[in-house]
Amino acid sequence: MCRWMAYSGDPILVEDLLLRPKYSLIDQSLHSRMGATTTNGDGFGIGWYGDRQEPAVFKAIEPAWNDRNLRELAGQVSTPLLFAHIRASTGTAVQRSNCHPFRYGRWLWMHNGAIADFHRVKRDLILAIDPLLYPDIEGSTDSETLFFLALTFGLMTDPPGAVERAVGLVEDVGRRHGIDQPIQMTVATSDGSSIWAFRYSSAGMSRSLFYSTDVVTLRQQHPEVPVLRTLSDEARLVVSEPLGDLEGAWNEVPESSWGVVKAGEDELHPFRPALVG
Amino acid sequence: MCRWMAYSGDPILVEDLLLRPKYSLIDQSLHSRMGATTTNGDGFGIGWYGDRQEPAVFKAIEPAWNDRNLRELAGQVSTPLLFAHIRASTGTAVQRSNCHPFRYGRWLWMHNGAIADFHRVKRDLILAIDPLLYPDIEGSTDSETLFFLALTFGLMTDPPGAVERAVGLVEDVGRRHGIDQPIQMTVATSDGSSIWAFRYSSAGMSRSLFYSTDVVTLRQQHPEVPVLRTLSDEARLVVSEPLGDLEGAWNEVPESSWGVVKAGEDELHPFRPALVG
Amino acid sequence: MCRWMAYSGDPILVEDLLLRPKYSLIDQSLHSRMGATTTNGDGFGIGWYGDRQEPAVFKAIEPAWNDRNLRELAGQVSTPLLFAHIRASTGTAVQRSNCHPFRYGRWLWMHNGAIADFHRVKRDLILAIDPLLYPDIEGSTDSETLFFLALTFGLMTDPPGAVERAVGLVEDVGRRHGIDQPIQMTVATSDGSSIWAFRYSSAGMSRSLFYSTDVVTLRQQHPEVPVLRTLSDEARLVVSEPLGDLEGAWNEVPESSWGVVKAGEDELHPFRPALVG
Amino acid sequence: MCRWMAYSGDPILVEDLLLRPKYSLIDQSLHSRMGATTTNGDGFGIGWYGDRQEPAVFKAIEPAWNDRNLRELAGQVSTPLLFAHIRASTGTAVQRSNCHPFRYGRWLWMHNGAIADFHRVKRDLILAIDPLLYPDIEGSTDSETLFFLALTFGLMTDPPGAVERAVGLVEDVGRRHGIDQPIQMTVATSDGSSIWAFRYSSAGMSRSLFYSTDVVTLRQQHPEVPVLRTLSDEARLVVSEPLGDLEGAWNEVPESSWGVVKAGEDELHPFRPALVG
Repeated sequence: MCRWMAYSGDPILVEDLLLRPKYSLIDQSLHSRMGATTTNGDGFGIGWYGDRQEPAVFKAIEPAWNDRNLRELAGQVSTPLLFAHIRASTGTAVQRSNCHPFRYGRWLWMHNGAIADFHRVKRDLILAIDPLLYPDIEGSTDSETLFFLALTFGLMTDPPGAVERAVGLVEDVGRRHGIDQPIQMTVATSDGSSIWAFRYSSAGMSRSLFYSTDVVTLRQQHPEVPVLRTLSDEARLVVSEPLGDLEGAWNEVPESSWGVVKAGEDELHPFRPALVG
Repeated sequence: MCRWMAYSGDPILVEDLLLRPKYSLIDQSLHSRMGATTTNGDGFGIGWYGDRQEPAVFKAIEPAWNDRNLRELAGQVSTPLLFAHIRASTGTAVQRSNCHPFRYGRWLWMHNGAIADFHRVKRDLILAIDPLLYPDIEGSTDSETLFFLALTFGLMTDPPGAVERAVGLVEDVGRRHGIDQPIQMTVATSDGSSIWAFRYSSAGMSRSLFYSTDVVTLRQQHPEVPVLRTLSDEARLVVSEPLGDLEGAWNEVPESSWGVVKAGEDELHPFRPALVG
Repeated sequence: MCRWMAYSGDPILVEDLLLRPKYSLIDQSLHSRMGATTTNGDGFGIGWYGDRQEPAVFKAIEPAWNDRNLRELAGQVSTPLLFAHIRASTGTAVQRSNCHPFRYGRWLWMHNGAIADFHRVKRDLILAIDPLLYPDIEGSTDSETLFFLALTFGLMTDPPGAVERAVGLVEDVGRRHGIDQPIQMTVATSDGSSIWAFRYSSAGMSRSLFYSTDVVTLRQQHPEVPVLRTLSDEARLVVSEPLGDLEGAWNEVPESSWGVVKAGEDELHPFRPALVG
Repeated sequence: MCRWMAYSGDPILVEDLLLRPKYSLIDQSLHSRMGATTTNGDGFGIGWYGDRQEPAVFKAIEPAWNDRNLRELAGQVSTPLLFAHIRASTGTAVQRSNCHPFRYGRWLWMHNGAIADFHRVKRDLILAIDPLLYPDIEGSTDSETLFFLALTFGLMTDPPGAVERAVGLVEDVGRRHGIDQPIQMTVATSDGSSIWAFRYSSAGMSRSLFYSTDVVTLRQQHPEVPVLRTLSDEARLVVSEPLGDLEGAWNEVPESSWGVVKAGEDELHPFRPALVG
């Protein structure tokens, strides 16, 4: 029940993406409290790549709409690759260490969805994490567990394969615990150069996932939207739900797919959980 | 855009009023995040009378639904007179000193509504507060300012008259600043024995205010609702919005009225802002 | 580097124990920020037994001296058995789920000290926890891990033996990781009737632990101290460091010992870590 | 009892000034919790000038040493002009709006010290603030009140004169309330180009204030300190207390003085409170 967005393109001021009123790209999401659907008031986070190899993260447990420091930061930080996430807890504690995005070395990870009956399968999943990675787990969420499983299964060398193996394990463990539909997810992960996005659920009824129409087209269709003029032609957004009401702006990622946004052609492939060993 | 409830009756465990799932009396309100309307996620507070003359208050800036300490407290504290408030800020900072209920000596105060264009009239209103009371202002809200104006105009000896004079001043100052509809409000205040409730707006279109049908009748109509069996016959609830979906449970307080819940007969009277001096 | 106190006796208002200025019993501790030693500003918590079987806990990440809600609560809650803890983190995150006391069913647990090189041994220790208990771990501290190990080894039926086995395991695992002095601790735990307190460290140089001189004697020696008049003759305090500067008030628990405060005679015994299996 | 530092010079990464362990310039201050003196655990803030005319501020109520977001930010933000402040409250609430530095337009302001008996004189001082500025007051501290008085008396055109008039008023109002020593302060303020620093107290016994020895000299004396190599020759630090233990690094600002750090020669002058009208 979380929402997230990932941006890749020419460096852009964070507030242009997150906070500009009306026609901003995720303003509506931050203000979903006004909307007809679930509020995402259980913390938020942003992660971005700056001058260093490792990304920075800013995360807090307040509703994003109240956080004055987020507004300050968003007016100062420019970045070519931004992750933003607003959380609606599915049960685990509201604390900074449970806020997305999660970070390991150069990698960021954020998730919308849930591992079903997580408290029943958590121990088995934790045991499958590489003991060398285990000490770096900071929080208590299913989302971070999934990240560390993906790291265990090779995220840093083969992101799609690693996530397929992590999800394969989650489904296997879940079913051994009698859980019919062990996982649902949209996930984004990045190494600072590319963004991989995943849409999958055991039930074949995943949460939504969208990527943006190319900026050139969009700019022609919507000359009235200022932020589009600040986006470079190569800019891409991947989002858990369409942001704004720009007609023609969003393409839905198909069920059980993964894609990658990178220099050169983007790609879109089927996602198939894999069982290791 | 806040919501509040006030309870008077035999001592009742706070969680029976606030937190019991389904058919609880304010559970729906706390979970308004699930609902179709505005979320009240900008802090909350409860105030209650215990063994001391002065009431206690517990207030925090997190969404009420996340506060583990509130749940702990609610399972321990019994009280014959409870105020509970969830806040949706109309602009002032989300900080504990801006959470309701406000307290002065034996008195509690909570408010739903707003003084229009508060930043423009704030200085004039603050100047009208008794200089001896002024140092006790802790926050920056219109609601606390209204409380201190009411204290200045005699809340402790004549609550209805004092609120009428405070509102009269707010309307006078507002109109001198060219503000058409200077105030809208529902307010509850208590000295630990009685609860006074007010419904008024300059435009004659006030936010809603309801009081509960007598418990004996309610219990007969709804034998299936456990919490009703724990309420004493004298129990009364005053609420900014109907809680639960109990048919026949709620009576609307008319526009421009005040009422008092106390030992003996309750009362309901017209509310008429008064201009002093 | 934390500090804690445990109280058992006639019901007493929490503020009489925690907050009364001068001659209060833990005021100095809360105000250690003024003192010459380490500040305990990384969160705090209290746990107490009320009308229910399960104790309540109130925990927060602010420095205790700033928490207005703690002051409110302390003026309302009376209890015959109180745990209070102020935290100085040894590395794990400052979040509510890492604050003491920890609770499991009727049991409370708090700890001063550390498991050495916890990040290196954590996984092995977590694996030794009963899989049925594992899902109830909420935080990431060594202290909570030790609690769950003690629960695994029978805390609810044989508290001293269970703690000896838990510590035995911690020492065994630590030494297998090449850690010379795997643990240092003072611990208090309670089921609501008795309080067990432990002082132990692998190096034989444990942090301090004190219990109070009997109240009758103390009252005669210090007629000038009001709080002593409110304590019942049976009242006992166990503290990590002497509170106040009452001469003759405190007896040091010897190195490698455990004691129990209960109805009838208190007891004091040697503590000997035990290796299971 | 607060502490602060102001930096001016070539752009420097905030963490190089604030967080680098050992020989960092304010690390010791942030870690004063380990020290023999008062802890500054009641919130903190930084303000810095970036690409915009208006400075940004990042402020929070946690102890600075716990704030993970501060560490993230400090690793990303470079600035030629930084204010940093850690707070030990003298009575007003611990809330973000009471954290320093305060900002108005291009101006930053931070303060160590107190207006004596502030609750008694607050109303008179607030009344003296320009009604057009009044609505922008966000918190409840003496420090922010002093800032708004200085703004009222011309801070933006004549900083030294404005502060002399503000302090003159505070002393006049204080003495009319029978307060012998109405103010003590060290203050720093900036418009993004220059830094003005003030040391004054009614009693002639002000808190300390230091400015740094020129970097060229310092670098020669301490070739072993890496951060000195990253500072430009023009870099200046003004601090409430000497940071680090670099011999020869700090020059004390004399009692009742103000100075300005700016392009060209720095200046140092006597400070003389002035009574307006």
